[in-house]
Amino acid sequence: MRLGVCYYPEHWPESMWEDDARRMKALGIDQVRIAEFAWSRMEPTPGEYDWGWLDRAIEVLGAAGLQVVMCTPTATPPKWLIDRHPDILPIGADGRPRAFGSRRHYDFSSPAYFTASQRICTAVAERYGKHPAVAYWQTDNEFGCHHTVVSYSPAAVGRFREWLKARYQTIDALNRAWGTVFWSMEYRSFDEIDAPVATVTEAHPSHRLDYRRFASDEVARYNRMQVEIIRAHSPGRPVAHNFMQLFTEFDHYKVAADLDVAAWDSYPLGALEEQWFAPEVKARWLRSGHPDFASFNHDVYRGMSKLPFWVMEQQPGPVNWAQWNPAPLPGMVRLWSWEAFAHGAGCVSYFRWRQAPFAQEQMHAGLNTPDNRLDVGGSEAAQVADDIRAVLAADADANAGIRSKVALVYDYEAKWLFEIHPQGADFHYPRFAFEYYSALRALGLDVDIVPVDAALDGYRLIVVPPLPVVPADFAARLAGSGAHVVLGPRTGSKTVDLQIPANLPPGALAAVLPLRVWRVESMRPNVTEAVRFVDNRDAAVDDGVARHWRDLIDVDGAAGPAASLDVRARFADGHPAYVKSGQFHYLASLFDDGLTVRLLKQIAEEAGIDATPLGDSVRVSRRGALTYVFNYGDRTHTLADVADDAFVIGSRAIGPQGVAVYRSGK
Amino acid sequence: MRLGVCYYPEHWPESMWEDDARRMKALGIDQVRIAEFAWSRMEPTPGEYDWGWLDRAIEVLGAAGLQVVMCTPTATPPKWLIDRHPDILPIGADGRPRAFGSRRHYDFSSPAYFTASQRICTAVAERYGKHPAVAYWQTDNEFGCHHTVVSYSPAAVGRFREWLKARYQTIDALNRAWGTVFWSMEYRSFDEIDAPVATVTEAHPSHRLDYRRFASDEVARYNRMQVEIIRAHSPGRPVAHNFMQLFTEFDHYKVAADLDVAAWDSYPLGALEEQWFAPEVKARWLRSGHPDFASFNHDVYRGMSKLPFWVMEQQPGPVNWAQWNPAPLPGMVRLWSWEAFAHGAGCVSYFRWRQAPFAQEQMHAGLNTPDNRLDVGGSEAAQVADDIRAVLAADADANAGIRSKVALVYDYEAKWLFEIHPQGADFHYPRFAFEYYSALRALGLDVDIVPVDAALDGYRLIVVPPLPVVPADFAARLAGSGAHVVLGPRTGSKTVDLQIPANLPPGALAAVLPLRVWRVESMRPNVTEAVRFVDNRDAAVDDGVARHWRDLIDVDGAAGPAASLDVRARFADGHPAYVKSGQFHYLASLFDDGLTVRLLKQIAEEAGIDATPLGDSVRVSRRGALTYVFNYGDRTHTLADVADDAFVIGSRAIGPQGVAVYRSGK
Amino acid sequence: MRLGVCYYPEHWPESMWEDDARRMKALGIDQVRIAEFAWSRMEPTPGEYDWGWLDRAIEVLGAAGLQVVMCTPTATPPKWLIDRHPDILPIGADGRPRAFGSRRHYDFSSPAYFTASQRICTAVAERYGKHPAVAYWQTDNEFGCHHTVVSYSPAAVGRFREWLKARYQTIDALNRAWGTVFWSMEYRSFDEIDAPVATVTEAHPSHRLDYRRFASDEVARYNRMQVEIIRAHSPGRPVAHNFMQLFTEFDHYKVAADLDVAAWDSYPLGALEEQWFAPEVKARWLRSGHPDFASFNHDVYRGMSKLPFWVMEQQPGPVNWAQWNPAPLPGMVRLWSWEAFAHGAGCVSYFRWRQAPFAQEQMHAGLNTPDNRLDVGGSEAAQVADDIRAVLAADADANAGIRSKVALVYDYEAKWLFEIHPQGADFHYPRFAFEYYSALRALGLDVDIVPVDAALDGYRLIVVPPLPVVPADFAARLAGSGAHVVLGPRTGSKTVDLQIPANLPPGALAAVLPLRVWRVESMRPNVTEAVRFVDNRDAAVDDGVARHWRDLIDVDGAAGPAASLDVRARFADGHPAYVKSGQFHYLASLFDDGLTVRLLKQIAEEAGIDATPLGDSVRVSRRGALTYVFNYGDRTHTLADVADDAFVIGSRAIGPQGVAVYRSGK
Repeated sequence: MRLGVCYYPEHWPESMWEDDARRMKALGIDQVRIAEFAWSRMEPTPGEYDWGWLDRAIEVLGAAGLQVVMCTPTATPPKWLIDRHPDILPIGADGRPRAFGSRRHYDFSSPAYFTASQRICTAVAERYGKHPAVAYWQTDNEFGCHHTVVSYSPAAVGRFREWLKARYQTIDALNRAWGTVFWSMEYRSFDEIDAPVATVTEAHPSHRLDYRRFASDEVARYNRMQVEIIRAHSPGRPVAHNFMQLFTEFDHYKVAADLDVAAWDSYPLGALEEQWFAPEVKARWLRSGHPDFASFNHDVYRGMSKLPFWVMEQQPGPVNWAQWNPAPLPGMVRLWSWEAFAHGAGCVSYFRWRQAPFAQEQMHAGLNTPDNRLDVGGSEAAQVADDIRAVLAADADANAGIRSKVALVYDYEAKWLFEIHPQGADFHYPRFAFEYYSALRALGLDVDIVPVDAALDGYRLIVVPPLPVVPADFAARLAGSGAHVVLGPRTGSKTVDLQIPANLPPGALAAVLPLRVWRVESMRPNVTEAVRFVDNRDAAVDDGVARHWRDLIDVDGAAGPAASLDVRARFADGHPAYVKSGQFHYLASLFDDGLTVRLLKQIAEEAGIDATPLGDSVRVSRRGALTYVFNYGDRTHTLADVADDAFVIGSRAIGPQGVAVYRSGK
Repeated sequence: MRLGVCYYPEHWPESMWEDDARRMKALGIDQVRIAEFAWSRMEPTPGEYDWGWLDRAIEVLGAAGLQVVMCTPTATPPKWLIDRHPDILPIGADGRPRAFGSRRHYDFSSPAYFTASQRICTAVAERYGKHPAVAYWQTDNEFGCHHTVVSYSPAAVGRFREWLKARYQTIDALNRAWGTVFWSMEYRSFDEIDAPVATVTEAHPSHRLDYRRFASDEVARYNRMQVEIIRAHSPGRPVAHNFMQLFTEFDHYKVAADLDVAAWDSYPLGALEEQWFAPEVKARWLRSGHPDFASFNHDVYRGMSKLPFWVMEQQPGPVNWAQWNPAPLPGMVRLWSWEAFAHGAGCVSYFRWRQAPFAQEQMHAGLNTPDNRLDVGGSEAAQVADDIRAVLAADADANAGIRSKVALVYDYEAKWLFEIHPQGADFHYPRFAFEYYSALRALGLDVDIVPVDAALDGYRLIVVPPLPVVPADFAARLAGSGAHVVLGPRTGSKTVDLQIPANLPPGALAAVLPLRVWRVESMRPNVTEAVRFVDNRDAAVDDGVARHWRDLIDVDGAAGPAASLDVRARFADGHPAYVKSGQFHYLASLFDDGLTVRLLKQIAEEAGIDATPLGDSVRVSRRGALTYVFNYGDRTHTLADVADDAFVIGSRAIGPQGVAVYRSGK
Repeated sequence: MRLGVCYYPEHWPESMWEDDARRMKALGIDQVRIAEFAWSRMEPTPGEYDWGWLDRAIEVLGAAGLQVVMCTPTATPPKWLIDRHPDILPIGADGRPRAFGSRRHYDFSSPAYFTASQRICTAVAERYGKHPAVAYWQTDNEFGCHHTVVSYSPAAVGRFREWLKARYQTIDALNRAWGTVFWSMEYRSFDEIDAPVATVTEAHPSHRLDYRRFASDEVARYNRMQVEIIRAHSPGRPVAHNFMQLFTEFDHYKVAADLDVAAWDSYPLGALEEQWFAPEVKARWLRSGHPDFASFNHDVYRGMSKLPFWVMEQQPGPVNWAQWNPAPLPGMVRLWSWEAFAHGAGCVSYFRWRQAPFAQEQMHAGLNTPDNRLDVGGSEAAQVADDIRAVLAADADANAGIRSKVALVYDYEAKWLFEIHPQGADFHYPRFAFEYYSALRALGLDVDIVPVDAALDGYRLIVVPPLPVVPADFAARLAGSGAHVVLGPRTGSKTVDLQIPANLPPGALAAVLPLRVWRVESMRPNVTEAVRFVDNRDAAVDDGVARHWRDLIDVDGAAGPAASLDVRARFADGHPAYVKSGQFHYLASLFDDGLTVRLLKQIAEEAGIDATPLGDSVRVSRRGALTYVFNYGDRTHTLADVADDAFVIGSRAIGPQGVAVYRSGK
């Protein structure tokens, strides 16, 4: 548990650096990320490096006792490089290059950029790799931000053809896998295949999915190149990348596999505004963020990080990039910081030290205002530093890892597949995953978020939001875990080639869940279906509504003992809405929030897990010997059963935006 | 009355074909459409045909007693052809080619594609034109689908210039007809004229309308080429095309004039979702479709078909291509089938035999599920086959044509003109036509839908939705018919060159309706105007609201005896809302649904037609000696006055989604 | 006070001209604008002029006693010119040329067009410059209409680089001014700088603002070229341009500085429909326009015109170009005309004499219908001519100028800056300016609208809507005026380079208003904040809600005596909402309409100005010795305190759409 900050010495007069470093340290900050956008200062002229200023900046920071997170500057290639190699620019779906003048204006498949990146990364790593103040590295910055993963350049198409050759070996195999006989889309050679874009009506979904997989792999390859250069020149320094949770056009698991630290950039207010939430939800959590959004992402990146995950950029005040940009309520910067630690973070690093008075992000707050006074976020960071001391003093094990009884399977490819192949215009995979997660959190449960190939042993409850493509061994691994398993609709609905399984959905899962999804319906936003839960004498025990989607389930038609299927809820027209077979629970739709919570509570109890409804604004996490409680609401929340002397931070009455930490044993 | 199905042998193992054919026949299917997307299998390599598989498929179908509807495969040119002739690709309004990778990626004006199409059509027609199992032909597939009529290619512009020369002879004539003196848009030669696209503000409306007319003519020319090749090689086999009612960028009448059978593709649920209806209307008819939508199109294509029209593709379950895709209620596939027959269909052909597990349409239901079990639609098709036997047994004349007392004039050019020249952002010609049609159907009336140059004798009531351009002889033909004539607003408002008539609207119709539309208003969606109907003593007899549009009518200013004009309704500000002159009724606005029904009832009665309000969910049709009743609602509808023994299908109590057929005499 | 009309002799048979001229004169019209779109008739073939028709048209008009407003025809370059110089076409943000076929299809930076314009303007000015009937000139037509100011052509980029060189001298100065060190956007030479378009995420705001300033300057340069040619050949004739208030992508003040008459084109109904107003507001003022919209623009152009401003085009009936196009209520054309005169107009000129039956504007009403009968607008114009005689008879000083006690500062650059840098998606500068203006008008106040560099002496109240960039001397000029000054939020929030001021907002204004805006919030449309006004004992005296934006104000943190700051209102969370320091009033948000009116009333009274709330539909203006009252509402408004014999037009009871004019002294 430590604090960090993002700092741009190149933005400020050198005369300010020493005071900045001193004040950072005094505030309780230990690590400082620098240089991720500084290429034009490192190499102002092609081939002529200027390291002097950066040497001095690192010196000043190191001298103040700060650890440097050194970055490669590849997110912002300078103008002279673009002018020399215009083919570095990615090509949009409109067939036009995306121009210089902001950031991330490069094509992951550009050979010229790959070479240029190797060169600058090597130069930086050679110069600073063994510098005593350099403790960590960050590759590039926010891969995928601004939707920059997919490019339609000739270079990308050329590499895509190679990727396809490697995957399918023969063009006949590709034609079969995709089903190109449909609409005479057959290819005679890999060289006939273009990018799936600008077609008259939708391009072939298998073609599109493979293009997305390819584009994701290009990001992983590019990052791996950087990691290898850094490791070669900077042994022993952990390498991180700061993922941006909103941009999931590449597989974060695959990139994280090459890293030591998966970090993410946490902007709860911007994320709320830019996501799928309804306007009234956005108004409700306007200045606090949704109680489960940061938390969800903590659990995502915790799961993929070899060392404890970091928040590389923590929102310190209003941002500039959402449609509307409110200010966090007083206390929220502290609350968010503690929520990260409670979920296992090793470091919370604020973005940025001081608000810059110029350029695109001049309206993005920092810990200090542009006139260099401490901002609210800065004061709260100082308070967090104090809190950390209290917590570490209270629990030697406070930095422990987290192991939950509940796992939620989260998959990037699922998101791409449903974007390509939604069948209902607003079908949004993250929404399903998030609503299940939110219900689990509203029950006070700690949740691991894991990839589909994760080890599942030890969990008592595994929740699988719509997972279209299931690995061959998934059913066996789920069954072998002994856990109760909740499967969302559309799970097992596609093969890896984006075809319907020969036995219909849930495909390979029919081995453990002998049902057959013979038909589906997507539902308009102004349509819901009533759902009625029944007990084993078919008496109503609960009800609610279903939204977005219906799987129509044939309980008799699938291979396997239908008798083992228990229909626990039905839609108004009699179709099963929820069926159970042993430890497997299949949901045919997305239920309303309240019903989802009640249902998961019941299943959790069947799985032997205590689940206590907390309402929508209080959240609880456990790490080491401590329990952390957060109040996102506007009324005081009182913990009835905790002894007064158990509190490390706060007390039994937790005010709005308040945090309490207590020894769990008490 | 017979059933058909769409079948893709190339999608399935040859080992399944025989069983498929047997099961089709057993289900009651008589005709099978094939091969419309099979070019890449017919000619996998340029110039090298592979007919073997298709020979065998036709053999299998014929041997099972099925009649083949053979298609030309031109809707999906293969990749090798596009790579050889990239100028086949149409050019969008954005100036970019629309790429290979879905379907309909061709430019009707491309000389290379015209030649290639002649070649493949000749090859197919030569090979199968006289095959005993081949009973019918279909040209191409769904002309215009995905908005593929208008292209902005150099080839199109070149042919447009020729088209203009043929129409106007001299550039001076064109300049006068268009009024290019406005904004200095004058041309000095036809070669100066470009496509009306990408201009700073709206392009010249006459220019745009002519470009649309030209593009429509290109479709007719292309289809005619195919029909002529088929007729040369396959004498005696009727030729059809399957129109897609949503795509009206070409004149369906003109294409149908070259065909024997006008067929259409009926997707009531997809069409509801994709059309102008309000969200609550879409929710109301979610799983049945709007009661008048399929019906409207049956009457459209019935009117333009020389032989009885067909439904070439009948929705059998959920589709994949609408924004949201609900499933039809049980019974709806049967109901839709019978509604087609009741409107005069010769064949209802389901799309498709079996849901494909791959490619773009893998979520489109068939009569069978992908795992080859009979789906709900398949069961209902079998029931329809049984029903047909009962109906044919009950009425020797069951296949008779239909002749209605009511005609509705429907015009494609009117739609284009109002799209180009709306004056109100949501002015939508099909909506006006549909609301009048729906009101007539809600009164239990059978309706012919006819082109503006149709013979009008024999009708008692003719309804003309906004028809901007009226032929010179239209007034005389209307008057000569002896029918009562209801004219929507904006009728006669433009000359053929898209100018305002010299005498103002209704232009040439002022001869029979001596009024003068001196001003118009388009109305925002949140604005309505009260309308008050008066009797001949000016006492209020009915009221309602007007929407979308107001013609402001001068009853004294036009040539002709104003005294003959009877103002039967006024807007709140006193302007006439409905005027009558002899048998001519002019509506100055679009009234609310209820008022439209009451008004048309009154006019129908003046015309000597019985009109019985049926409400919004029951519909009635008559063909031969039988009356067909359809219940789209969710409550049982009871026929009070029909004898029990009159029923051929069903009974007096018609449940939701139910069909009843009874001998009309009883 | 005189009337004019826009006339297109080239659209009509020459045989109609004489009658047209006679009827114009008889109607009371004195001046006729012609020829602004007639290039293709003036020069039908390159280099070969045809002046005959125009000579004759001017002869006819002059002979009827009409004064001609002669136009340069450069808004519509003919096809042959475009074909010879395709680089005349502007390039859109999509990188594509905007095509020939409507109007304004030229790039202000095109050298070919500049030369061609010089040539045609010289030809026209030479021919008609000294013609006795030619009394005035208009340059071009509606600069900027259809968003035609900004082009991304190579010519524009080339000239932009020169513009930057002139502004910054050295590339280092530019890099510093913009802050290009951010994201490595540094340039090594001016030739590396492109247009700020098509970037991955937002382009640099300073870059964008400079590009907008450059594009605006190009318009001024182009207009100046025309004015100089006209002045050289037509001495003594005032030169006008007709600004289109909706299109503010160039600085109207800068163009007006080269003119004698600032004219504008007043379309109250089209403007209402196309502006930011909510649908219910659009329905409310559907057929009258918003009571303050034309008025606002009268005051804008009055302020920048050396001679009395004109309405060059006055809406005479429905237009064709808004989303929906209702008709004005009877009386509105007269009311609008009088409102213009009441605000100081020298001429109101109707667009157009007669509705054209062809081309893009065939649905745009004129004073006469296409069949050449007088339309409602024509009758009302005749009535205005009568009214003018009465008014001139009643007050020898009726044509006097207007000098108000209240000034509102309006700035074009502010609009561009906030478009580029909104921080809240719906932040719309004109809305803020308009709401303040509307509140002042609802208090019966006459308002001058002035540029930021205007002389401010003599005003008692100066209202400054959000003005991000304040000149260095602005605080001193405001203070020196002695007026009370109301400043909207975000005032002083940026430097001229679009950076945050070193002392934070309000930057240079902190000298007179010692506060510090340390944080801001943009607010979603579904979020408001309660505001509570307090007296000096902190008791609540009024309340309301704040919308859109909050400046969070530090009253202690700025330089200067904080004690001088009086917090007169607070948001619910305690932050100041309205603070006062001496004569300076700072509003931290946009308050609801009612609260804004009450607040400005109170401040007006502090400033010694009488302010009488008029409600939302009655408006009052004063010019010379007369007071003008306008009733936009639907109920009669009665003036209680005016003597019956004071009325020059109308009487004490002013009906809906009514006008009354009375001697102010009575």
